[in-house]
Amino acid sequence: MRYVRFRDPAGAVRQGTWNDDGIQFASATYTADDVDVLPPVTPSKIVCLAGNYIEHAHGNVPDRPSLFLKGPNAVAGHGDTITIPDVDRVDYEAEVGVVIDRQCKHVDEDDAFDVVRGFTCVNDVSNRTDQEVEQNWIRGKAFDGSAPMGPVVATPDHVENPRDPRIRLWQNGELKQDSEEDELIFDVPTVIAEVTTMLTLEAGDIIAMGTSGRPEPLSDGDTVEIEIDGVGRLHHHVRTP
Amino acid sequence: MRYVRFRDPAGAVRQGTWNDDGIQFASATYTADDVDVLPPVTPSKIVCLAGNYIEHAHGNVPDRPSLFLKGPNAVAGHGDTITIPDVDRVDYEAEVGVVIDRQCKHVDEDDAFDVVRGFTCVNDVSNRTDQEVEQNWIRGKAFDGSAPMGPVVATPDHVENPRDPRIRLWQNGELKQDSEEDELIFDVPTVIAEVTTMLTLEAGDIIAMGTSGRPEPLSDGDTVEIEIDGVGRLHHHVRTP
Repeated sequence: MRYVRFRDPAGAVRQGTWNDDGIQFASATYTADDVDVLPPVTPSKIVCLAGNYIEHAHGNVPDRPSLFLKGPNAVAGHGDTITIPDVDRVDYEAEVGVVIDRQCKHVDEDDAFDVVRGFTCVNDVSNRTDQEVEQNWIRGKAFDGSAPMGPVVATPDHVENPRDPRIRLWQNGELKQDSEEDELIFDVPTVIAEVTTMLTLEAGDIIAMGTSGRPEPLSDGDTVEIEIDGVGRLHHHVRTP
Repeated sequence: MRYVRFRDPAGAVRQGTWNDDGIQFASATYTADDVDVLPPVTPSKIVCLAGNYIEHAHGNVPDRPSLFLKGPNAVAGHGDTITIPDVDRVDYEAEVGVVIDRQCKHVDEDDAFDVVRGFTCVNDVSNRTDQEVEQNWIRGKAFDGSAPMGPVVATPDHVENPRDPRIRLWQNGELKQDSEEDELIFDVPTVIAEVTTMLTLEAGDIIAMGTSGRPEPLSDGDTVEIEIDGVGRLHHHVRTP
């Protein structure tokens, strides 16, 4: 199933499904142009990984996941235009978003997919200028709109390799990121087990699995697209203040 | 006014007031023993300051506030027993919690108290063992129960110096922290203005203003009390796993 949140033509917020026939809720079917597609979940927190793909980690393989947080203020949706901070450099980072299905803690690796609702595409938009000089990445990573996500939550059966899904990013139509198999350092079950040793996760919370390769800067007017096979393609726009 | 959230004897969650006559909601009056006092707010995020009192900053006065985040999973309440991580050292940190009254962004320093509902006591419980080795303080600061808070939200008129309220902490009855005037580096209006340049704050969000002096370790069975004049005294208990 591919779950979508949207505002219907009457202004009501709906939780529907999105398949080849369109967006469906109860007996109604819409095209994407009929509705406002909203962020697919309303997370209480977004738990993010740093340096979790071998090349992006610059060869430094850590002994445990390196974590940071974004709050609900970071969420943006499919089709939205985010305003990036007014600093020298702000980068895109295509990431696999793992969507949590239910409140959970102390989840065993072997049971990790029991608490996964599915996957969504996330852009971990990163203010490099401040990230380089602050201890905790608040100016760097947690600003408003720093986590565009969507367009849907696709259940794991839609995704070829749910422990390590393939993800790609296009900037103004040019392919810039394309994760390769076996680049991921800590896979989905390992990360869920580790995070839930210390943090209770809630339904709709997101774990953003880190980015691959060498992200590049965003500019005013850019369009970003991020695709996970089976999830579909998130797109959003960028402007400077 | 001193606002309190509590569960009444019938199990209903109420938003009442707490004065010398007791806890009041509608026509009912209770004693603290009649009800379960709950965390006074349900924040979407807790924005915390590091090194914001001169002695605790070890003489390093930063040029702007040093920030980090805790999520809603960190919240604990008055009278609760928190389980601290199983590591070598976990410290208390008594902090002034500024409670936000309404959704806001880009707040001017001069208007900062317009968006302040009031103050509450916060313990920024800190896992020093992991804090020393991780980039972002997730294991260090964001674990479940790492932010006991309460017992009430007291409006600024209850507090003698709302730009920099006095705060004290007792561990098992012994006074351990007592903030002095003019120790605070960035005061309440300065911090609200700075945080809201990048983060939208929501009603019920907390800004924890940092701690003073030299916090010491917690042990299994400890009782911690934190008091801000006019707010009252938060107490909670500590256990190890």
